[in-house]
Amino acid sequence: MTLIQPRTLKGFRDYLPAVMIPREQLMQTAREVFRSYGFAPIDTPTLEHLEILTGKGSEETDRQIYRFADNGGRDVGMRFDLTVPLARFAAQHIGTLGTPFKRYQIAPVWRGEKPQDGRYREFVQCDFDTIGTESVLADIEAVAVIHRLLEAIGFDRFTISINNRAILTGLLEHLGLADKTVAVLRSLDKLGKIGREKTAAEMCTAADIKPDQADAVLRLADCSGDSDSVFANLQSITGGNDKAASGIERLRQIYQGALASGVPMRRIKLDVAIARGLDYYTGVIFETTLDDLPSIGSVCSGGRYDNLAGLYTKQHLPGIGASLGLDRLIAAMEHLKLLPTASTPAPVFIAYFDEDHRDDYLRMANRLRSAGLGVEVYPDARRLGAQLKYADSHGFTLAIIAGGNEWSNGEVQLKQLSTKQSETVAYDHDNSDKLIDRVKQVLG
Amino acid sequence: MTLIQPRTLKGFRDYLPAVMIPREQLMQTAREVFRSYGFAPIDTPTLEHLEILTGKGSEETDRQIYRFADNGGRDVGMRFDLTVPLARFAAQHIGTLGTPFKRYQIAPVWRGEKPQDGRYREFVQCDFDTIGTESVLADIEAVAVIHRLLEAIGFDRFTISINNRAILTGLLEHLGLADKTVAVLRSLDKLGKIGREKTAAEMCTAADIKPDQADAVLRLADCSGDSDSVFANLQSITGGNDKAASGIERLRQIYQGALASGVPMRRIKLDVAIARGLDYYTGVIFETTLDDLPSIGSVCSGGRYDNLAGLYTKQHLPGIGASLGLDRLIAAMEHLKLLPTASTPAPVFIAYFDEDHRDDYLRMANRLRSAGLGVEVYPDARRLGAQLKYADSHGFTLAIIAGGNEWSNGEVQLKQLSTKQSETVAYDHDNSDKLIDRVKQVLG
Repeated sequence: MTLIQPRTLKGFRDYLPAVMIPREQLMQTAREVFRSYGFAPIDTPTLEHLEILTGKGSEETDRQIYRFADNGGRDVGMRFDLTVPLARFAAQHIGTLGTPFKRYQIAPVWRGEKPQDGRYREFVQCDFDTIGTESVLADIEAVAVIHRLLEAIGFDRFTISINNRAILTGLLEHLGLADKTVAVLRSLDKLGKIGREKTAAEMCTAADIKPDQADAVLRLADCSGDSDSVFANLQSITGGNDKAASGIERLRQIYQGALASGVPMRRIKLDVAIARGLDYYTGVIFETTLDDLPSIGSVCSGGRYDNLAGLYTKQHLPGIGASLGLDRLIAAMEHLKLLPTASTPAPVFIAYFDEDHRDDYLRMANRLRSAGLGVEVYPDARRLGAQLKYADSHGFTLAIIAGGNEWSNGEVQLKQLSTKQSETVAYDHDNSDKLIDRVKQVLG
Repeated sequence: MTLIQPRTLKGFRDYLPAVMIPREQLMQTAREVFRSYGFAPIDTPTLEHLEILTGKGSEETDRQIYRFADNGGRDVGMRFDLTVPLARFAAQHIGTLGTPFKRYQIAPVWRGEKPQDGRYREFVQCDFDTIGTESVLADIEAVAVIHRLLEAIGFDRFTISINNRAILTGLLEHLGLADKTVAVLRSLDKLGKIGREKTAAEMCTAADIKPDQADAVLRLADCSGDSDSVFANLQSITGGNDKAASGIERLRQIYQGALASGVPMRRIKLDVAIARGLDYYTGVIFETTLDDLPSIGSVCSGGRYDNLAGLYTKQHLPGIGASLGLDRLIAAMEHLKLLPTASTPAPVFIAYFDEDHRDDYLRMANRLRSAGLGVEVYPDARRLGAQLKYADSHGFTLAIIAGGNEWSNGEVQLKQLSTKQSETVAYDHDNSDKLIDRVKQVLG
């Protein structure tokens, strides 16, 4: 028989244990944080009617949708993000669910893009949203959730940049440039890459505005930081425009509310230069960068939108949400050496080399598991050296070794695999406390 | 603008919070159990080269595969189970991973079958396997894992039926019917439905065997129970056949090892009548039924196979695994009223009706969350009645109510939503211990 070559599709990948363990841990941490704020999980189908998906992102995403006719001849597509399914879901169920509706969803999405720059055709998105309220409290809470997510994952040095799109909109109104918003934003978006001077020049050419107007926009973009004087500057640059003024006040409330919610001042920054998603976001917007790895880009971004599901329902559904960049975070954690490297989720390894005592090994494992410990028993009674090599390479912390002598003497050998340090610990099935206590002590 | 009708595809479904919360809980419980035995998570792509998928299940599953040509013209398919991807994965990576390899995978699969009888075209499978060992210890462990899964999910009355395919194979060899195995098994499989007499008759006709031969097969199938005499009966019926004898000894080891692993005798049963997957399994096989709802069928099934990945590699990979039937379990739990009904994952609700104190509500929520409590703050300062109705309908346990008076007096109202009982508890931001203690006490 000819063998079929075992291989994955281009742009797709298997997750082996050493990679999947921290990924799963990260998703679990995210779920716990979301739940602690009252966000509830939902799930939606992988496949949607194609008409639900097309024309909701850009032309580019349209091209990237995996689409086909199913057995019933229906045009279907695999979701390319979690926002479009959420909009469809909200339109369909909001009558049952009511508002405010707070949900999270952690699920894969598919895009048939060129698999380059470490981008894959299947990747997991991790989104949370509060729908059906315009309250600033929901905006504040979004900042608090982002902060808690990063902290719970294990980051200490990170910055959440906050802006409110209304401020720039107000300034452009004040300058009589309301119709040039998109062109100005497009130029402003390049500020980080090409610098102030070139951005100003481009703004004048591309958006056809005057140098002093470009200067005002750039002075506004300069208003970053975390002090009260920033708010005063914003006021003065926007010249009392109503929209800008209320946008500034809202930004102040968010800033203050975030502090009340336990976000330390050093981790939030007002940054009028961030723009994100030109068409989608209408109010407050966020980006989150790792201070030790800013080059990786924003690891958690989002913002407020006016109307989530206008394509599917007449019900006006404003909301706010953000998306945690799982792959970016994992890459960053790897780079910053924050990732564990074990390929086993259990810390304790029990060697098995005396078949006559098979049930004793099993009984001991059961005792340890009942005390909440993760335990693997090697399945084959091979020589000890091979078993310890397995334990070492898989990243177990402790090995428990017991042969005929130990079983008769009521003791086991406890070996710390990183230091090779061994000790003898008393153990029998009726009195497993000593071993359990010692194992817990070593595991910290 | 014409609205697009928000709808899901036939055979697909949205999971709303009240349904998704227990589903997620169940998956999390399964992960924790798997990990505590040293099973590691993996993930594989949703899409595979079509040639990997076809011809691995039955003709029926082949027909059910969602298949299409991708943008690059490759024939691809969506996985219809997790076993075929595991086989492909093992063939591809076992050189890196080594054996024994213990993995679990919890992921959706797709089958374009007629969506009837509550069956869906997208459903989650939850599998664990130990690959690369023929050790009985791995068989025993599989029983222990199944037991722990059911127990951890919250079931008390359930039975794990265990059989070893080698025993019947040995009997048929002993009776000179080795070439009739498949036909005999097919008839035997109907025993539960059509009864002993009709099964005997059918066996004689369909498998072309003699009445006393059919009788021997059925006497073997009668050997169910949990006592030592069962093993003696099996020995006597199989007349000392070698294959049967070693199959019986292995079954005895599994039974005894399961007891040593903490599985109570009342929850395991030898049952030579269970057959499962005629072609795939070659050794021990399991089924798990709920004593209070046997009609729902097996909720966790599996067994030992000789060679997992023979289509993709020459490396011989024996293994053992089982699959937890998530949808069935959820249905059973609903039926047995074991499911929580809340549509919020947070137990504590903070009403918000004094905008001047917005930051105070946020600060209090942060204090409670820091103590490990799940807390939702209502985002809009609406009237209290509407907020409490929301809290009630979402299944929060406790509501915390504080208006201007309470904030001045350093106290809050704590209301138990099921009993409507209210009490006053002292609270200020510098001393939140009293409130935290009381909330924890009420939540139990």
